[in-house]
Amino acid sequence: MPLQTVNRQWLLARRPEGQVRAGDFKRHDAPIPAADLAAGEILVRNLMFGFDPAQRGWMDDVASYMPPIAIDEPVRGSAVARVVASANPAYPEGAMVRGLFGWQDYAVAARSNEAAPVQIAQGVAPEQALGVFGAASLTAYVGMLDVGRLGAGDCVLVSGAAGAVGSIAVQIARLRGARVIGIAGGPEKCRWLTEDYGADAAIDYRSEDVRSRLGALAPDGINLFFDNVGGSTLEAGISHIARFGRIVLCGAIASYNDAHPAPGPRNLMRLVSQRAEMRGFILLDHLDRIPTAMADLRQWVQSGEVRYRVDIQRSFEAVPQTFLRLFSGASQGKQLLRIDGAE
Amino acid sequence: MPLQTVNRQWLLARRPEGQVRAGDFKRHDAPIPAADLAAGEILVRNLMFGFDPAQRGWMDDVASYMPPIAIDEPVRGSAVARVVASANPAYPEGAMVRGLFGWQDYAVAARSNEAAPVQIAQGVAPEQALGVFGAASLTAYVGMLDVGRLGAGDCVLVSGAAGAVGSIAVQIARLRGARVIGIAGGPEKCRWLTEDYGADAAIDYRSEDVRSRLGALAPDGINLFFDNVGGSTLEAGISHIARFGRIVLCGAIASYNDAHPAPGPRNLMRLVSQRAEMRGFILLDHLDRIPTAMADLRQWVQSGEVRYRVDIQRSFEAVPQTFLRLFSGASQGKQLLRIDGAE
Repeated sequence: MPLQTVNRQWLLARRPEGQVRAGDFKRHDAPIPAADLAAGEILVRNLMFGFDPAQRGWMDDVASYMPPIAIDEPVRGSAVARVVASANPAYPEGAMVRGLFGWQDYAVAARSNEAAPVQIAQGVAPEQALGVFGAASLTAYVGMLDVGRLGAGDCVLVSGAAGAVGSIAVQIARLRGARVIGIAGGPEKCRWLTEDYGADAAIDYRSEDVRSRLGALAPDGINLFFDNVGGSTLEAGISHIARFGRIVLCGAIASYNDAHPAPGPRNLMRLVSQRAEMRGFILLDHLDRIPTAMADLRQWVQSGEVRYRVDIQRSFEAVPQTFLRLFSGASQGKQLLRIDGAE
Repeated sequence: MPLQTVNRQWLLARRPEGQVRAGDFKRHDAPIPAADLAAGEILVRNLMFGFDPAQRGWMDDVASYMPPIAIDEPVRGSAVARVVASANPAYPEGAMVRGLFGWQDYAVAARSNEAAPVQIAQGVAPEQALGVFGAASLTAYVGMLDVGRLGAGDCVLVSGAAGAVGSIAVQIARLRGARVIGIAGGPEKCRWLTEDYGADAAIDYRSEDVRSRLGALAPDGINLFFDNVGGSTLEAGISHIARFGRIVLCGAIASYNDAHPAPGPRNLMRLVSQRAEMRGFILLDHLDRIPTAMADLRQWVQSGEVRYRVDIQRSFEAVPQTFLRLFSGASQGKQLLRIDGAE
């Protein structure tokens, strides 16, 4: 049963120009959707939001693998929710689900709309469903193993290595026997990399010259570079790519807030002389791998071989500020927000 | 028998800074190598030089797939030559050979040194051995078919399409049933593309906006982009890459003479949203394909299905100026030079 009388929402007020700001969003109170659902639909009550840099891209008016978020619509985003009314026997009332339910208290979801709910297994907490068992980890898994074709003897570089995707990418590479170098911002995140995630070395891009450090740490070159950052970090990695090396492009958080796209790497000819490849991917093309990936992740988390961090903010009012933490580097792990008034 | 008393040479006088200039080379008269050869060696008399943009890269002091050309050494380059003395039964005196014999009248060559002579089949003229049956065509072949995995339904884009590599790439794509768009400089070269090489459309980068023309010519995107140019041409191609598209990086003639590397494409995130790949290659990794490629090329040339153009300059003294034609766009086909005094 609804616990509130309104459906609180954060709408996209305008398309961000360059750096996304709190003023790009606006609070709105909508009526709670009626519980007279069409067959297949469910009404969900959001409990926790998960934040992802990809949401920034959806805010631009650019056709991509998903349509842009419409102005004055709730911002598209992942959430864990409880089913409060159901016209779909697969999702009974009371079940816990994860989906693209958006920045609001309540949503009507169905397999046929973009919310795409999936039920959460017993014993999995919301912060796990949105974090270590969420899309970021699955992205790290297919990016490393399928797109990047990780080999045991590889020297692997991961940028954004302390983030939700990067920290799992680092640990998968380590578990498969690779030598791993991680790039992160600040001494604390670099310490997570080597002490918690088992990276062989960490580079602090805020205080160190990434390019020269790579030369020292990887004298024979990088066989596999899993890049979440783009920009000068990508250029530095290309400059040390090994012969027949693979660069997996997962994202480019460095550039998401550029009003005008920044120049790309100046050294792409290195891909020719090193016969290297660079390949973009998104998780949606690898859905067939999810059962295997989930089984592996569950086992690794259970055994303690894979560790993870969550950064749980609170209060529905703080949703935009929490999103901005992704880009300032403030997030201390997978960025989440527990919705007040929901339980 | 030597026809001259000296071995004319063009040495690399200094490393070019940015734009290569005639003054980066100097003429030198060396003694003709003695004919007392070690076992396996041959003495060759060069008859014709072939010029290639890759030579510009070898002039920089940068480790690549080949060592830099040493200062005060003859410039490394392809030539067709006649064997004038032989200590290798595979290359009898009088045989015609092709190899990296350098910018000089005479060279001592062996399978074990970088000259790597190969005998030229009966009936193949020097301009064919250096042109349509040379490394440029083989590069186009493996780049299109093996690296680019050309499919019959592909919409293919080739930059530098009127050049030695590009013109063959265009024709191979057409012969395999693809739709082909070529980019070249000037109306005459664009006419070659559509009238002689069978491209479906040509874009003149000197007078047209490549990006908007691509939008009109390839509304469903480019499935395979064979890039010889780099720079803004590469950026334009990326902006129209189709989902799961492949970009084959063969070279980047736009940048070879940059003193400071120019910024790269600003839109590499497009490789993520389109799940596209970009891959550099060099012919040396595909030597096993050469017999098949040569057989196909011979048949296509014989049947007239593949056409080619050569631009034959004359006079040993004109070697540096002829090399510079590659970068000014003056070359009217595969750039060659027939050596005076050689026959």
